[in-house]
Amino acid sequence: MIKVTAFKWVPDFAKGQVRDHRVRWMLNELGWEYESRLLDSEDQSSEAYRREQPFGQVPVMEEEGRSPIYETGAIVLELALRSGRFLPSDPDARGEALAFYFAALNTVEPPLMNVAIVELFTRDKEEQARRRPEVLATARKRLGELEKAVGDRAFLVGDEFTIADLMVASVLKGPQAFGILDEFPTLAAWQARILQRPAYLTAIEEQCAEIERHGPTDMKYPPGIA
Amino acid sequence: MIKVTAFKWVPDFAKGQVRDHRVRWMLNELGWEYESRLLDSEDQSSEAYRREQPFGQVPVMEEEGRSPIYETGAIVLELALRSGRFLPSDPDARGEALAFYFAALNTVEPPLMNVAIVELFTRDKEEQARRRPEVLATARKRLGELEKAVGDRAFLVGDEFTIADLMVASVLKGPQAFGILDEFPTLAAWQARILQRPAYLTAIEEQCAEIERHGPTDMKYPPGIA
Repeated sequence: MIKVTAFKWVPDFAKGQVRDHRVRWMLNELGWEYESRLLDSEDQSSEAYRREQPFGQVPVMEEEGRSPIYETGAIVLELALRSGRFLPSDPDARGEALAFYFAALNTVEPPLMNVAIVELFTRDKEEQARRRPEVLATARKRLGELEKAVGDRAFLVGDEFTIADLMVASVLKGPQAFGILDEFPTLAAWQARILQRPAYLTAIEEQCAEIERHGPTDMKYPPGIA
Repeated sequence: MIKVTAFKWVPDFAKGQVRDHRVRWMLNELGWEYESRLLDSEDQSSEAYRREQPFGQVPVMEEEGRSPIYETGAIVLELALRSGRFLPSDPDARGEALAFYFAALNTVEPPLMNVAIVELFTRDKEEQARRRPEVLATARKRLGELEKAVGDRAFLVGDEFTIADLMVASVLKGPQAFGILDEFPTLAAWQARILQRPAYLTAIEEQCAEIERHGPTDMKYPPGIA
């Protein structure tokens, strides 16, 4: 049985955002059974967990008799390679899908994370106000470029859902939560269509239901998320 | 013939850092011939280039009769998949290599880029001094975690060079340039061994020689790099 590590509890703003939803989503797309292994902050900072995940983040995908894998980018891609699904085998289409996939993680998400750092984790209101214009401008620049690239496509590559759609739509959940995705209506509409997939909706339901069930713990936030 | 886009000119601090070195390095490892296509800021911001690279970054890998690919993470991985080299085929080892590869791009590089934003692109000295402690602390935390994960290995996965070594060693060039990598001597020593590879040295020589040959242009910096 595949296990995916996730948090026992997170504050409201992080519900449905923690990155284990990406792996749950992919496993649901594949129809592969799995269960979650829920961590509190003690589990997360333990030496044993660090041996599986050097940065102490969730999720890790664990499977009896196999090495654990971490980083959502790695897990979702490895699942695509193992299953032969949701990543084109034609090198041209695969290259295009990988470009969107890595752009999501290395070009679009870092400036969006900087918005989160300012909006959620900067307590000093003056500091927050000082830094806000720069991080928002950088995030908006990237979102505008991405919107142009996505255009009116149904799926990013070809006529079928790929891991590029999964990763780009997931990375856009941050600006969606902050309300800035609405400034890019074509991109927001594309994301909304992708997020109607049953496998995504199930993933989010599962994550949120587990968090509700456990209620607040002494977990410190922000924990590492990846 | 494969072509790789690169910059005609960059200021001294960016020489040997621009990310086309990753693709040149991989192509040199494979022994595949290629040439560079050098861009100035006008080329880079043109509509034609944006159709190849939505974010206007370098490098793009172009090949007659094939779709262009962008994002160094995507290009280097696609080259590994096409060649069947430098990425293990065993799912356990491949998962481990992909975890390091994505950790480099999504967990380690973003906080390192924030150090670069503060040190290189923040002109206001007060603002720079105010922000420095936080970005350095976050970068050091990640470098310490990475150092523990790398330990005394020669290569990150198994007994042979993989694209995980390429990407992690390349991402560490930033903190190496800022002098903070020296605080992690085991990690610095690992990187130094990887950067002795002839394919890497040739990649850097080529990038720097082309920049020297063209001399300063009117190019504005920072251009998009990816």
